[in-house]
Amino acid sequence: MNPVHFYFDFSSPYSYIASEWLDDLAARHGRSVQRHAILLGVTFQAAELKSPVAYPIKREYSVRDFARSARFHGLTYKLPEPFPIPTQNAARIFWWLHDTRGPDAAAAWSRAGLRAVFQRGAALNDAATLKALAAEHGLDPAEVEAVWNDPRWKDRLKRANEEAIAAGVFGAPFFIVDGEPFWGNDRRPQIERWLASGPF
Amino acid sequence: MNPVHFYFDFSSPYSYIASEWLDDLAARHGRSVQRHAILLGVTFQAAELKSPVAYPIKREYSVRDFARSARFHGLTYKLPEPFPIPTQNAARIFWWLHDTRGPDAAAAWSRAGLRAVFQRGAALNDAATLKALAAEHGLDPAEVEAVWNDPRWKDRLKRANEEAIAAGVFGAPFFIVDGEPFWGNDRRPQIERWLASGPF
Repeated sequence: MNPVHFYFDFSSPYSYIASEWLDDLAARHGRSVQRHAILLGVTFQAAELKSPVAYPIKREYSVRDFARSARFHGLTYKLPEPFPIPTQNAARIFWWLHDTRGPDAAAAWSRAGLRAVFQRGAALNDAATLKALAAEHGLDPAEVEAVWNDPRWKDRLKRANEEAIAAGVFGAPFFIVDGEPFWGNDRRPQIERWLASGPF
Repeated sequence: MNPVHFYFDFSSPYSYIASEWLDDLAARHGRSVQRHAILLGVTFQAAELKSPVAYPIKREYSVRDFARSARFHGLTYKLPEPFPIPTQNAARIFWWLHDTRGPDAAAAWSRAGLRAVFQRGAALNDAATLKALAAEHGLDPAEVEAVWNDPRWKDRLKRANEEAIAAGVFGAPFFIVDGEPFWGNDRRPQIERWLASGPF
């Protein structure tokens, strides 16, 4: 069975929501989830798009919809201030964990990071906040700081972004299941049908 | 009970899909539907947005998602070629019907127009095609042509667009229920919860 590919950004509210339901949904249908930390800004640039929150009218709606969608899914939610934040350091830690300790360790970090941002409003772009989260998560703060400054992990994240763009990803959360692309937390019912009964 | 306000463009595939489920859903919860024909292009301009299909990568995904979403809802679907098309004439007929024969007559025209576009690929921007559809629908082709050329109905559509923008509408389908805005066909589950049990 192919895994469900899940592309997310640590600063994406809809990615936080999807991250909370995806593992159970996939497991119910005998699938694993392969997570890909990416930078939404890079995929937007490649597709010549801007963030929805870059447009005042859409931002007002989106902020309301983020919170309402979280409530709809029964999740604790808080919009971090400022929003959005740059998340490259958290994403480099993700890929470091992925490549050195395996996908499960990276997945656990992704869940912890998304929850920290959207349940507590943690500013993961702040070095002290990110190191504190790493420590809470059982990682060595000095080590993660060295990781996010290391050209090796900077390159690893760049490669992940390029691979996502090559796969057609232009937003987050973005899912690819058996080659089929699904964009947005709100594609959950379609993903569920696909997993339950195949292409439709 | 407040009506469910439904803002749509005759060239919006997701509006076609929503138009097919909305009346039943609203009726099950004792609500009427108040339809508003608008021009997406005008609301995009007001919000400084562009159509998703204006971006090549997003267009490719969107075209796939239109068809898949229609199948998901069990609907016949065909993308008209070219797409999108200008729909001001169909929208002026909508407002003429609305103001002279009432909301139900306008609603029936909106369903017929959306089905013509997305079930048969009818180019409603073509005068002959639009007149043929009007005739099929029991309207006088010469009369509808006079309507869409009449400054009175041109102004009526302009006013509808301005009212939509003032209400915060920046895309289609767009729903407003008890003052709460919902954007997109994929907000159906949230609208359903709202109608069933109120604000959440």
